[in-house]
Amino acid sequence: MTLFDDDTATTEPADARSRVRMTIAYDGTGFSGFSVQPGGIKTVGGALGDAVAKVLKHPVRFTVAGRTDAGVHAWGNVVHFDSPLAPEELDLERLQRAVNKMCKPRIVVRDAVVAADGFDARFSAVARRYRYTVLNRDVPDPFLHATTWQVEAPLDLRSMQLACDPLYGEHDFSSFCRKPPDPSGSNVRRLHDARWVDLGDGILRFDVEASSFCQQMVRSLVGTLVDVGLGRKRAGEISWILRSQDRSLAGQLAPPQGLCLWEVVYP
Amino acid sequence: MTLFDDDTATTEPADARSRVRMTIAYDGTGFSGFSVQPGGIKTVGGALGDAVAKVLKHPVRFTVAGRTDAGVHAWGNVVHFDSPLAPEELDLERLQRAVNKMCKPRIVVRDAVVAADGFDARFSAVARRYRYTVLNRDVPDPFLHATTWQVEAPLDLRSMQLACDPLYGEHDFSSFCRKPPDPSGSNVRRLHDARWVDLGDGILRFDVEASSFCQQMVRSLVGTLVDVGLGRKRAGEISWILRSQDRSLAGQLAPPQGLCLWEVVYP
Repeated sequence: MTLFDDDTATTEPADARSRVRMTIAYDGTGFSGFSVQPGGIKTVGGALGDAVAKVLKHPVRFTVAGRTDAGVHAWGNVVHFDSPLAPEELDLERLQRAVNKMCKPRIVVRDAVVAADGFDARFSAVARRYRYTVLNRDVPDPFLHATTWQVEAPLDLRSMQLACDPLYGEHDFSSFCRKPPDPSGSNVRRLHDARWVDLGDGILRFDVEASSFCQQMVRSLVGTLVDVGLGRKRAGEISWILRSQDRSLAGQLAPPQGLCLWEVVYP
Repeated sequence: MTLFDDDTATTEPADARSRVRMTIAYDGTGFSGFSVQPGGIKTVGGALGDAVAKVLKHPVRFTVAGRTDAGVHAWGNVVHFDSPLAPEELDLERLQRAVNKMCKPRIVVRDAVVAADGFDARFSAVARRYRYTVLNRDVPDPFLHATTWQVEAPLDLRSMQLACDPLYGEHDFSSFCRKPPDPSGSNVRRLHDARWVDLGDGILRFDVEASSFCQQMVRSLVGTLVDVGLGRKRAGEISWILRSQDRSLAGQLAPPQGLCLWEVVYP
């Protein structure tokens, strides 16, 4: 059984003796995101939690650094869970091997360790790094379709890069976010970095880092920046769209398969 | 309807007025190879031929440069087919777009042109280039599982490179080939190039070029070279295995998903 609750700070269950930290990679194709959902919906957290629970023979409740949406990938998402087993009773190499066998090929535990005291996968994280990959070619690529967004018309990368400048720093990103479910929830985030990298052969990667991201924020930013690259919006409009706090002024929403949670940064 | 016959030199049908040359890329996962097979078996040539025939409204018979096996990929395989339509009646840009829409995401026509006089996708080819990718890591990678062979134990790349030397030039490659279906068929091939490229992060690529390849030849070479890298065989044994013309002396057969027909070379 997989329990799941990452909307509240995790309190250790009374019988918790160890906290385990895992770095996980997954191809999000075909999964309804990370977070466990009721009714047999296939999620990354559900599949992974079932496997871990089966190996350790106790229920597992994950706290996750990045609650990725349906179809979004991860290379370095981080989770923690508490176990009633003592650290010396946990064979984490065996756990990793067994879980990877059960979850292959789309979900992989890259690393499983006993967490340092006070570690929380979500609340200890100081930054998240995402990568979004655009395939700017007029002919599709069978090897990249699952991890890129193909944009056929030529993109003006210079304008797209210029349009990133006003995004740096602390802002209310409501123009680029789904409304938070809790009306008191804030869309204020601190953006540390946002840059386009030209990898050649029409492969354009957007690297972005922030304290955290609100829902659909990276995809909304990418869709809007691609609109700038297509000449549908001017680079100078971004600052004004940001200040408006009006979602309807942002551009298209980039599709999920181009997005990958690359890394979670801890102090 | 897709006809298929690439075992005999193609003679133009009486009503052929154009020959079309296409460069195709495909993710071979889930396909039973390129060649059309009876009984509803899913093949790349079958799916592609059905799409082309539907657009052009006449039956299509492919001649292909590389008859890739089940599960093998291609980036630059080349086919030709004859059409009763005159060159000026063929809208090949429209054909390419329509076929790519019908065959997506796993099969892509990269290029479709009216072939030069006397061109034959199979018999005009002077060389084929294949790439085989090994993932030499102890933890799987969800983004590379479909296109690499994961070998967990560390490989000695120097020995694997050394073991390539005796393969250069013209040899009977029977030790590395399935017996040809026709007992008079020859396994003599000229190997132009065979080298390992270390791409970093445990990604090792074998680049090999020959006049042509007999069935399973690249996978058998790679499996044997990996056996050298694992210390199961010595680099010095390769020359002797080659001369023996005895398939049972070669190493393991590398799995198909690591193999990609990279390019076909024409004069």
